[in-house]
Amino acid sequence: MKKVLVLGAGRSSSTLIEFLLTHAEKNDWQVVVGDLDEKLAREKINGYERGKAIAFDISNTAHQDSLSSGYDLVISMMPASFHIHVARVCARHGINMLTASYLTDEIKGLNAEFEKNNAGLIMEMGLDPGIDHMSAMKVLDRIREAGHELRAFETFTGGLLAPNNDDNPWEYKFTWNPRNVVLAGQGFVKFIQEGRYKYIPYQKLFRRTEVIHIPEYGYFEGYANRDSLKYLDAYKLRGIKTLYRGTLRRVGYSKAWDVFVQLGATDDTYELHDVSKMTHRQFINSFLSYNPDDSIELKLAHYLKLELESDEMFKLKWLGMFDEELVGLDKGTPAQILEHILKKKWTIQPDEKDMIVMWHKFEYYEGKELKQIQSYMAVEGEDAINTAMSKTVGLPLAVSAQLILQGKMNPLGVHIPTEKVIYEPVLSELESHGITFTECEMEPSAS
Amino acid sequence: MKKVLVLGAGRSSSTLIEFLLTHAEKNDWQVVVGDLDEKLAREKINGYERGKAIAFDISNTAHQDSLSSGYDLVISMMPASFHIHVARVCARHGINMLTASYLTDEIKGLNAEFEKNNAGLIMEMGLDPGIDHMSAMKVLDRIREAGHELRAFETFTGGLLAPNNDDNPWEYKFTWNPRNVVLAGQGFVKFIQEGRYKYIPYQKLFRRTEVIHIPEYGYFEGYANRDSLKYLDAYKLRGIKTLYRGTLRRVGYSKAWDVFVQLGATDDTYELHDVSKMTHRQFINSFLSYNPDDSIELKLAHYLKLELESDEMFKLKWLGMFDEELVGLDKGTPAQILEHILKKKWTIQPDEKDMIVMWHKFEYYEGKELKQIQSYMAVEGEDAINTAMSKTVGLPLAVSAQLILQGKMNPLGVHIPTEKVIYEPVLSELESHGITFTECEMEPSAS
Repeated sequence: MKKVLVLGAGRSSSTLIEFLLTHAEKNDWQVVVGDLDEKLAREKINGYERGKAIAFDISNTAHQDSLSSGYDLVISMMPASFHIHVARVCARHGINMLTASYLTDEIKGLNAEFEKNNAGLIMEMGLDPGIDHMSAMKVLDRIREAGHELRAFETFTGGLLAPNNDDNPWEYKFTWNPRNVVLAGQGFVKFIQEGRYKYIPYQKLFRRTEVIHIPEYGYFEGYANRDSLKYLDAYKLRGIKTLYRGTLRRVGYSKAWDVFVQLGATDDTYELHDVSKMTHRQFINSFLSYNPDDSIELKLAHYLKLELESDEMFKLKWLGMFDEELVGLDKGTPAQILEHILKKKWTIQPDEKDMIVMWHKFEYYEGKELKQIQSYMAVEGEDAINTAMSKTVGLPLAVSAQLILQGKMNPLGVHIPTEKVIYEPVLSELESHGITFTECEMEPSAS
Repeated sequence: MKKVLVLGAGRSSSTLIEFLLTHAEKNDWQVVVGDLDEKLAREKINGYERGKAIAFDISNTAHQDSLSSGYDLVISMMPASFHIHVARVCARHGINMLTASYLTDEIKGLNAEFEKNNAGLIMEMGLDPGIDHMSAMKVLDRIREAGHELRAFETFTGGLLAPNNDDNPWEYKFTWNPRNVVLAGQGFVKFIQEGRYKYIPYQKLFRRTEVIHIPEYGYFEGYANRDSLKYLDAYKLRGIKTLYRGTLRRVGYSKAWDVFVQLGATDDTYELHDVSKMTHRQFINSFLSYNPDDSIELKLAHYLKLELESDEMFKLKWLGMFDEELVGLDKGTPAQILEHILKKKWTIQPDEKDMIVMWHKFEYYEGKELKQIQSYMAVEGEDAINTAMSKTVGLPLAVSAQLILQGKMNPLGVHIPTEKVIYEPVLSELESHGITFTECEMEPSAS
């Protein structure tokens, strides 16, 4: 019998734990779920005979030591900063490990010890990072192996609402950590376009979007992610002319979101005054000039050069940003207050479905001829619990766990899934669970 | 004989050291100047019999200990972070001390020890902070002592070029630390207007300027400084309706500077690529979209919604921002590169004169009647060495030193010059050296 331990029983672990439990009997696995809150772990076990819930506290050294007692695989779903403590025990005792979080230099430092003890750790095995790496590398490697020269690579991912008949003009709600949505794009953005390094500051990011058409799914807009250049090495793309990573939203989202950026309402570096008495309307007004004779709507529209009846103003009204409703917090930074107001309208309802969309564009020369391939995937959630987000984050971990426990994948040392020995079997398993990429060859556009 | 030690013989110490040396004979002072570079200290002593140069290294504990050997007053002109080391020795041995830097909590913690040992430390005794505190408190205290109710206080200071017939359309050059000019305004801005807290983000700061008219000197524009609210307690202004601190520039400066802000050219958080091969023109282009068929001028104008023949575009052309001239650095952040380019045009020439302008506006109720007082000062420099900046920073320290050494001012504990016992004698001495404020009563404007 193989024994697998999942650390962290929060919402993002649902798909993973359920997969392991439903596959445990026929594979002869025991599935142990550890969480600070043992009751939460027991709920996730949901009565399965092959499951077992334990209390687990990473700051407890006895609990840390218990990791070495007979597990064949540990999957850490805890906050990213805790992984290193788990990884150290796994490396020392030669236990395989998986996470969906970004690889750090500290964890990379355990590579030799994992190798020596005949075990492997795969990081970044979720959606983004995770499926993005694997689905991109599959096409990139194929183009290179055919001897063609890569010219451009663009990749966009978005966590969105599934198309619906709702009256929500943003066509958006929080389907993942709201705080990250509010802070998205802060800092600088770098990419390469036609051989030139390009930089976008936060204050222009949501105005420099690209329209992206995805066959079957229609039009989206994409804004750039922080540092596309770090993929030059991870994807072996040195010398490529264009490299751009971004985030997808529905058309019109970015221009309306930019209102918050321009106001300073996404700032997370200082606390506002008198928050307990503040209404939505006063929150907006605190970023506008003092002119008691003018309406806040007009001051805002004039400040940001918007038409009073524009789509952006309508989106703000729909959110209740001009309402004399108390924010409902005692203190907070602008970003924290904005998040709190947004949650009132942007919290996904039980019957609502989310959607994940991922899209890659590859341009390469076949001899002298310029060719273009697009590859895309979309997954819809079932409801507010079984979301596309939890499915696309959980399934890569789940099928990787299966491959490792079945002995079909044997990583040695520390990895991210950019290598064929990892991405081929994992993508193949994901396909059988409904995560499939469609590829099409397109006419390259004049750039 | 009284013995005074000046630590730091850099450019900003010139006025102070010269004042002390020329007043040494008749006051029976010895003036010791200490610097890492003993030669620089000797140059500043300039052969005066009453002067003495020493090598001084704050990281050398023997040098630190030497501070206790018979000095009556120590004036630290070293970088701000070094003051605490000097202050600890002065507190322990009961030696008076002066600096022009901001008071920190760590230094405030020495208050009791200074008091116990019968000595005083006055911080913030320069221009801004320094003269601003003193000249504002003089009027604020007078209004309060007359029993009137303060309604509003606004204060602006600017380091500018003196009016001249130059062709420089910015009417600006660096007259102080260029790096601080490039980074000015980053972070958030807070103030109170008509009883409401107001916040301005960096990306809007240079578009939310105020026009300020100063009698005799004409029109200026002011943008807000970081946190006006910290003066609520320092100036005892709790309950005031409007409190606003800002920086003065000549009209048109801010809108043109905003071009750099919007581009992201003042960002100091990341390094650009391929800087050694970069020209001014390419620097600007790295922040613009890729469109090889369009000129950089047109791309910029369109991006920031400027007319091609606008004042802002002209100011950029005058700086050579569109020239194919190498930047001349091997690496750097956008802010470092911008500073380097600006220095080519904005370095003050030997025969050029700078100018300091300070302006306060006070509104108060005399009974039911709203009154307004404006108080302002302007000082012109003599040349690029004897600048208005070094004079207005150095003289408050110099006359304070004189008052302390003559026993006319006896601070006990740690202070900033917001108290009458300090600002009255210092302002009076400053007047006799040409730093005078003009006061006028104005018709209060409808707000």
